[in-house]
Amino acid sequence: MNPAPGLDRFSVNQMTVRGLSLPELTDACARLGVPGVGLWREPVRAYGVAAAAKLVRDAGLTVTTLCRGGFLTAAGPAERAAALADNHAAIDEAAALGTDTLVLVSGGLPTGDRDLHGARERVADALAVLGPYAAERGVRLAVEPLHPMFAADRCVVSTLAQALDLAERFPAGQVGVAVDTYHIWWDDRAPEQIARAGASGRIHTFQLADWTTPLPAGVLHGRGQLGDGSVDLRAWKRRVEAAGYTGFIEVELFNEELWARDGREVLAETAGRFVEHVVE
Amino acid sequence: MNPAPGLDRFSVNQMTVRGLSLPELTDACARLGVPGVGLWREPVRAYGVAAAAKLVRDAGLTVTTLCRGGFLTAAGPAERAAALADNHAAIDEAAALGTDTLVLVSGGLPTGDRDLHGARERVADALAVLGPYAAERGVRLAVEPLHPMFAADRCVVSTLAQALDLAERFPAGQVGVAVDTYHIWWDDRAPEQIARAGASGRIHTFQLADWTTPLPAGVLHGRGQLGDGSVDLRAWKRRVEAAGYTGFIEVELFNEELWARDGREVLAETAGRFVEHVVE
Repeated sequence: MNPAPGLDRFSVNQMTVRGLSLPELTDACARLGVPGVGLWREPVRAYGVAAAAKLVRDAGLTVTTLCRGGFLTAAGPAERAAALADNHAAIDEAAALGTDTLVLVSGGLPTGDRDLHGARERVADALAVLGPYAAERGVRLAVEPLHPMFAADRCVVSTLAQALDLAERFPAGQVGVAVDTYHIWWDDRAPEQIARAGASGRIHTFQLADWTTPLPAGVLHGRGQLGDGSVDLRAWKRRVEAAGYTGFIEVELFNEELWARDGREVLAETAGRFVEHVVE
Repeated sequence: MNPAPGLDRFSVNQMTVRGLSLPELTDACARLGVPGVGLWREPVRAYGVAAAAKLVRDAGLTVTTLCRGGFLTAAGPAERAAALADNHAAIDEAAALGTDTLVLVSGGLPTGDRDLHGARERVADALAVLGPYAAERGVRLAVEPLHPMFAADRCVVSTLAQALDLAERFPAGQVGVAVDTYHIWWDDRAPEQIARAGASGRIHTFQLADWTTPLPAGVLHGRGQLGDGSVDLRAWKRRVEAAGYTGFIEVELFNEELWARDGREVLAETAGRFVEHVVE
């Protein structure tokens, strides 16, 4: 794969163009000179993990991440065992796809639970099990802080500082963090935490989305196209680079309006926005 | 006013029962033994500031706060002058109503602006003008951090730490903070910041709402009734009390479902929830 000008570090997360099948996605990447893709477990499993791995390998694409494992906050033994089993499977899938990074979304508060700290400790307990298993397979876990608006129902890890407090209990080759502008752009402590993450080699993926308002109901599918919102994307890119990150930059947009359009067109637009708003 | 059992520190913010007129609100408070109200500028001005002041005074109610001034992030000279004039008026109204606390919501990013730090500095510039004016009239400004999901369009001050960084540039008798569980419950640094605020006498109001999901479109009107969500309300009450706060506790719920119901019924329910979930 010869990347198009300005796109040598560009990766499109599959969810940005969720309407495309995996063959359509790899074909569109080849035509546009997009060298990286971030994949999601559900469509990969529906297509077949081995078949998907062959498809992206034959297309010369780098699989920058697999999204996602996690949801590790349940308190009951049966639920915890099921969550660990599912994450072991996710690690196996990541290894089969040839990516070195599995993104983890921690999970929210169990019903009736109001103890965020306790839930984060259960995530740490799970990382102690999953980290060595992942490292043995060449996969690193990337704990992703999600925006605080998701703290109750999706992710009890809300800041890079919290994600690093978890990750630093383990070797960097086992556990690091995902830095996603959508989730951290508001946080005046995030720049120093990016430096902290970089210093120990824990920036395992860098993802971009812009922040646009008004947020839609449920707030999950309102991530803005690059350049449409309030995030100074280039400034965040410079921060992760100053911290030593030289890897792919993945664009992950959950956006109903984008999903309603043709995925090839959205991919071309997103690549163009990347060159306009991110590349120096 | 003789407060009902358990309600001696309870204050209902007018927005919780926005369907009630001011006379209906004061009447409902008298019947239920609710000793405090937090008022909003728009309905007070519509009723007449002097008339509203007489109404609450005759009812024996304490006006715990006036909501709200602020929106101080504009960069243009004309817009900044207009914002300052509006806040001077808000301070005058607070003094006329006999409350010692004006809540300030800082304002969001101007269109096309991506510099949160710069916007917060413009808030500081405005506080330097407004603080002395307020103190001369017996009014304290309470900078309210809003949940980070409002950082772009409503309030560039997202954490108690940021609010205190602003407030501490001025005397505590001029500028303090509003502590509202809805906005800070996710923040693991908030407990230490409450202690910091208390140590300098800057907890100018303590407000409660619970966090419920899914969030509605626009995310403004989804604050949960006490006990319905993920916030350990009593734990937060204990933290502000440990920091020295002994004042009223105001319940402020922006909630379309509550607004669709009879305000007297909602007030009675809210007072009951306060006793159940907050009072020791």
